[in-house]
Amino acid sequence: MEKKLRGKKFRVVFQPSGVRGEIEEGKTLLEASQELGVDVESICGGKQLCGKCKVRVEKGRFAKLNIRSAFSHVSDWESSEERFIDGGGRTKGYRLACAAKLRGDVLAFVPEESRAGKQVIRKEAGEIEIQCNPAVKLYRVDVSEPSLDDPLGDFDRLAQEIGKRHDLRDLAIDYLVLRDLSGILRQGEWQITAAVWDDREIIQVQPGSIEKCWGLAVDVGTTTVAAYLCSLESGEVQAVESMMNPQVAFGEDVMSRITYAAAHPDSGLHEMSSVIIEGLNSLISQATETAGISQEQILDMTFVGNTVMHHLLLGLDPQYVGSAPFTPTVQKSMDIKARDLGIEINKSAYVHILPIEAGFVGADNVGVLICGEPYRKDDIQLIIDIGTNGELVLGSKDRLVVASCATGPALEGAQITYGMRAAPGAIERIRIDPKTFEVTYKVIGTEAWSQTSGSGEIKTKGICGSGILDLLGELYRTGIVMKSGAFNRELKIPRLRMDGDGTPEFVVAWMDETSIGKDVVVTQRDIRQIQLAKAAIYAGAKLMMRHLGIDRVDSVLIAGAFGSYVDKEEALIIGMLPDISPGRIVSMGNAAGDGARMALLDREKRKEANWIARRVEYLELTIQEEFQDEFIAALHIPHGRDAFPHLKGIVPDFILNQ
Amino acid sequence: MEKKLRGKKFRVVFQPSGVRGEIEEGKTLLEASQELGVDVESICGGKQLCGKCKVRVEKGRFAKLNIRSAFSHVSDWESSEERFIDGGGRTKGYRLACAAKLRGDVLAFVPEESRAGKQVIRKEAGEIEIQCNPAVKLYRVDVSEPSLDDPLGDFDRLAQEIGKRHDLRDLAIDYLVLRDLSGILRQGEWQITAAVWDDREIIQVQPGSIEKCWGLAVDVGTTTVAAYLCSLESGEVQAVESMMNPQVAFGEDVMSRITYAAAHPDSGLHEMSSVIIEGLNSLISQATETAGISQEQILDMTFVGNTVMHHLLLGLDPQYVGSAPFTPTVQKSMDIKARDLGIEINKSAYVHILPIEAGFVGADNVGVLICGEPYRKDDIQLIIDIGTNGELVLGSKDRLVVASCATGPALEGAQITYGMRAAPGAIERIRIDPKTFEVTYKVIGTEAWSQTSGSGEIKTKGICGSGILDLLGELYRTGIVMKSGAFNRELKIPRLRMDGDGTPEFVVAWMDETSIGKDVVVTQRDIRQIQLAKAAIYAGAKLMMRHLGIDRVDSVLIAGAFGSYVDKEEALIIGMLPDISPGRIVSMGNAAGDGARMALLDREKRKEANWIARRVEYLELTIQEEFQDEFIAALHIPHGRDAFPHLKGIVPDFILNQ
Repeated sequence: MEKKLRGKKFRVVFQPSGVRGEIEEGKTLLEASQELGVDVESICGGKQLCGKCKVRVEKGRFAKLNIRSAFSHVSDWESSEERFIDGGGRTKGYRLACAAKLRGDVLAFVPEESRAGKQVIRKEAGEIEIQCNPAVKLYRVDVSEPSLDDPLGDFDRLAQEIGKRHDLRDLAIDYLVLRDLSGILRQGEWQITAAVWDDREIIQVQPGSIEKCWGLAVDVGTTTVAAYLCSLESGEVQAVESMMNPQVAFGEDVMSRITYAAAHPDSGLHEMSSVIIEGLNSLISQATETAGISQEQILDMTFVGNTVMHHLLLGLDPQYVGSAPFTPTVQKSMDIKARDLGIEINKSAYVHILPIEAGFVGADNVGVLICGEPYRKDDIQLIIDIGTNGELVLGSKDRLVVASCATGPALEGAQITYGMRAAPGAIERIRIDPKTFEVTYKVIGTEAWSQTSGSGEIKTKGICGSGILDLLGELYRTGIVMKSGAFNRELKIPRLRMDGDGTPEFVVAWMDETSIGKDVVVTQRDIRQIQLAKAAIYAGAKLMMRHLGIDRVDSVLIAGAFGSYVDKEEALIIGMLPDISPGRIVSMGNAAGDGARMALLDREKRKEANWIARRVEYLELTIQEEFQDEFIAALHIPHGRDAFPHLKGIVPDFILNQ
Repeated sequence: MEKKLRGKKFRVVFQPSGVRGEIEEGKTLLEASQELGVDVESICGGKQLCGKCKVRVEKGRFAKLNIRSAFSHVSDWESSEERFIDGGGRTKGYRLACAAKLRGDVLAFVPEESRAGKQVIRKEAGEIEIQCNPAVKLYRVDVSEPSLDDPLGDFDRLAQEIGKRHDLRDLAIDYLVLRDLSGILRQGEWQITAAVWDDREIIQVQPGSIEKCWGLAVDVGTTTVAAYLCSLESGEVQAVESMMNPQVAFGEDVMSRITYAAAHPDSGLHEMSSVIIEGLNSLISQATETAGISQEQILDMTFVGNTVMHHLLLGLDPQYVGSAPFTPTVQKSMDIKARDLGIEINKSAYVHILPIEAGFVGADNVGVLICGEPYRKDDIQLIIDIGTNGELVLGSKDRLVVASCATGPALEGAQITYGMRAAPGAIERIRIDPKTFEVTYKVIGTEAWSQTSGSGEIKTKGICGSGILDLLGELYRTGIVMKSGAFNRELKIPRLRMDGDGTPEFVVAWMDETSIGKDVVVTQRDIRQIQLAKAAIYAGAKLMMRHLGIDRVDSVLIAGAFGSYVDKEEALIIGMLPDISPGRIVSMGNAAGDGARMALLDREKRKEANWIARRVEYLELTIQEEFQDEFIAALHIPHGRDAFPHLKGIVPDFILNQ
C-alpha cells in the first residue's frame, strides 16, 4: 500500500451528500472527493483542462459541522480556472476542485452538473395495483346565478350545488380559497371546477372545466428521499425525483440526529426540520418541472418515513423516541395544511402523514404493510425492510408482530472500508470461483461482468450494499471466511493478504481495475460489521417467531432499496434469514414508497393504515431476555446453532459442517 | 356670525378618527381640530402654555386621503414647543397643535394622551343572561406515563384519556400545539390542562392545573369597533375596549368603502383589511393589559359586523355585495384559525365568524337576533338597529322578516352642521319650553342640565345623535318646525333667525355657552337630513308590516349605540316608529355586541345563529314598488298620512292637526 509521511490534516465536508473526513494539507478538493468517495466529475483527471469539477467553497464558519472557518482555506485562484468560471461564479466561491488545494477546513458544495453520476436511486416507482379513489376529487359544477329572488351567498350556493349532486353535506372551504371565490365564480361565468378534500373541504376552485390534478407521495428515508408525482385521476406516476436526505449533514443515522437535536436545544431541531422541508420543496420543484405542471396543481400529499424522520419533518422533538420507553409524540395519522409545514404545493392542500406503529417502527413500515397487506394473507410472511434502520414484520391475517433492529449502515455500504452508496462505479454483484478463488463482479453503470468486459468500461471504486452481502456469502461458500467470520489464514492465495498491522484482508479488485489508484479490499473489520447487521436481523426474526409460537415462515419479503438488488441466495447463505427455500424469498421494491402512493391514490388505504398501525403488536427486542443470546449465536455464518436444510446443495457440505 | 375674508384652503385629515375638511391657510391645527369637531385637549386655550395639544404631523403624500404632500406643510418649529417636545419627538414629527399653522395639506395623528376626552363609546357590555357553555373548554388531565409495556404515543395517550373521561372521540390536535406537546407533558409530570375547541380539536396544552381562559367577542361597526374580553368560565366581562374603525379613513359608510376597494383594485381591499386587523390587534393588546393576561390566554373569539365589515375583515372583495343582487361571498358561519387572519390571540385558536342573513343584513343583525330572540316570542316585535346603516327585524316565533335601510349617518351626528360623535362637549338631550321657546340641554361629561349648571362646567361644541333626534321632536312639538319639516317663519323669536343666504336656522346654544366661540345652530338642511333618516326607517317598517299582513306591532326594540340613549317619546314624536305606546319602546343596548358575547360563551347560540340566519325572510326594500311612495309620505313629521293616536297628550292637538 502506498504510504506517505503524515502531514497536517483538515476537515472537509462535501454537500449535499454530507460526506466528511480528514484530508491532508495540500491535497486538491478533487483528491479529497475521491478519497472520501464523493462523486465529482473529472474527465481530464485533475489537469485543469475539462472544467467539469466545479465546486463551490462555502464562506464562513460551520460550528455544527466542526468547520472552524471555510473559504480562503483553499489555495489561491489560478489563472487556468478563468476559462471555466466567470466573475460571478468566482464571487460566489466557485473553484475547480482540481485546482483548489486544502489550506484549512473546507465546506464544499458539489453542484448537480459536477456530479460524476447521479446516485442510482433505488426507489423507483414499482408497478402496483392501486384502486384510484383519492382523498381529493374534482367536481365540475354549474352554479345557478344569484338573483334578487335568490340572493344566496356565493359559497353557500356552491356548497348547495355540490351537496345536491354529489351527496356531500356540510362542506367547508379553506379560508384562502374563500378569498378568491366570488371573483372566480364570475370569471368562470358560474361554471367552475372545485377540488374537495376528504368529502369535507373545498381546497381549490378554478373557473371552467378542469380535469386534471396531481398528488405527491413522499418517502423520507434516513439517507434517501424519494417523491412520486402522480395523476390523481389515472394514478399514473408522472415524475419520480429523489435526493440524499440533506439531514445527513447532521448525522448518518437516526440516533446521531436525535443526539444532534439534543446537543443543540436552541436550533438543532429547527435546522434539521428546515433542511428537509427545503429539500422536499426542491424535489417538488423538480417534479413539477418534469411533469410540466405548477406547484399549485398538486392538491394532495402523503408522507411516510421512520419515526425520527417523521418527527423531524413535523418539527417534533425526537428525544423521547431516542430512549426507553421510545415514545413518539404522535402515532395516529395527521392531516396538516401544507402551508403550516412550509411545503410548497397548493397552499390550501393538506399533507397526510401516515401513522406510526411504535417506537422506531414508523410510518415507513406502515407503508410497507398497506403495500404488502400481510394482514390479509393466510400464509405466514416475514417482511424485512432494510434501510439504515431495519424493521421486521411477521405474521398473517390472524396476528402480526413488528420489531425494529439496529442493523447499522453496513448493508448500505457505510462504515465499510471501501463501502459506498449505490452509484456508478460501485460493485453490486460478486462471484468467487471456489477452485481458483478468482473474483468476478458487476459494477453499477455497466451491463457486463468484470471478466468479460472490455477495458473501456467504468472502473470500480468501492462496494455497495448488495455487493457487500454477496461478498460475505461468496467468501464463506468458498471457504475463504470461516463459520466464525474469521479469514481462513491457512489458505494461501494472492488475494488474501495481511495488512500493515498483520490482520488479513481480501482483495476484491486490483488497483488496475479501479479508478482510485488503489486495490479495493474487504477487511476483517468489514466482515464483522456485516455479521453484526445480519445477526441483528436473524435474531430479531427468531424472537418474533418464538413470540408467535411458530418455527417456520412461508415466505420472506425483502423491502427497501436494498431489497430490490439483494441476491436472495446469498442472503440465505450468510444466515440473515431464517431457513427457507430461496424461491420463497421475494423482493418487494420500495414498499414504503409504494405504500405512500397507495395512500395518496386510495383514501381507503389511509383508514387501513390507521387500523393496522394500531393492530400490529410491537415487540421491543432489546428488552427480551433471549435477545443477546440469539444475537451472539447468529453472528456465525450462517448460524452457531440452527440448521439450514435449504442450504444443502447451495453451500458445499464440508463448509456447512465446519 | 364672524366672517373673514376667505383665504386659501388646505385639506386636513385627523387620525385615528379620519375626520377631514378644508381649513383656511394660517389657522393652527388646534383651530382646525375645533372647526372639524376633532377632540384635541387644550387647557391653556391655544396659548402654547399647557403642552396638552401634541399631535404628530405625518410625513409624505397620501393619495388615498387626497393629501398632496404633508409635513413641512405646517409653519416652522417654535421655541415655545421645546418645553413640551423633546428631540426624539420632534424627529417623529410631533408639534403643539396650537403652534403649527397650516401652510399646505396636512395629515395629523392625535395621540391618545392628546384627546380631550375619550369618545364615550356607547357599546358597553350590557347585563345579559348567558348560559356558560363555551366552545373552548379546559380539561385537567392526568395522563398515565408511558412504559415499555405501554409505549403509546404522547398525543394518542392524551386523546385516549380525555376521550375516556369526557366522552370526546376522534380528538384532533392543532399542529402548532403538537410541536410542543411532548415537552409539556414531561414538564407537567403527566399532569396537564388541555383546551379543547368544539369537542374536536386540542388547541392548547399547559403543564399542571389551569383553571382560567378567556375569549374575545368583537363587534366591528362601520364607525366604532368594540371588543369584550370575557372569562370563558364565569362569563364575566373582564375588559371592554373600543375604538374608531380605522377604515373610516377610507370612507365614512359601507358604500364608500366598497367604492374605495373598487377604485383601488390592487391594494384597496388589502389596505382596509390590514387596518382593521391591526386595529383589532391593538384592542386585543389593550384588553389583555387591562385584564392582566397574555394574548396567548385568549382561546376563542367571535365576530359580528355588517356584511361589508365582515367581508373587509376576511379580505373578501365587497364589490358583489355593493350592487344587485347584493350577493355576499359567504353567508354561513365560518371558523378560521386566528393565525390565518393575522389576529394576535392564541395562535391555535379559531375565530368564529357569525353568519350573514342576506345582502347588507349581516352578522351584526344575527347578533341582535340571538340576543333578542324574537323567534321565541308570541308578541310581534319590531327591532331597529341604528348604526351608519339601519337594519329592521319584524315578526314573532311564527315568522320573521328582515330589511336594511340606508339611514345615512345623520342619526350618528354626521353630516349635520354642528353634529358630532358622542364625546364630551356634545349635547345629548334637549328640551324646548313651548311658551318661552327657551332651550335647556344636557352635555356629555356633565350630570346637570344647562340652565341649572354653574359656569365652570364643560361647554358645548356640538350635538350628537340622540340630541339631534330630541331637537327635531322638540322643534316640532313647540311649533318651531312644521309638519313639512320647514321652519315656521311666522314665529318671531330670537333663536330662529336667517343665515347669510336667507334660510332659517335655530340657535341651540349661544356663543357664550360654547367652547368653539360660535353659536351652535341647526339649519334647515340639517332638519332635512334627519327627516330622510327617520323616513327610511318608518317606510321600511311599514312595508315589512304590510309584507306580514299586520297593522300594529306589540313592541319596538331599539338596538345599537344610538338605541341606548335615544328618548323614546321623541323618536315617536318625529315619526320614526310606527304608532305605539311609548312604554312599549325598549332599548336593547348594543345587542349586536351582546350577541357576539353570547355566541362566545354559549356554543348553542352559534347553532341558533346559523339556524335563524337561514330562517329569516329578507325583504329588499329598494325593489318594492310602494317604497318610494311610503318614503315620501314618511318625510312629514310625524307622517303625511298615518295617524298616531299614541301622540295624543304628548304633542298638542293643534300641532298634530296642522
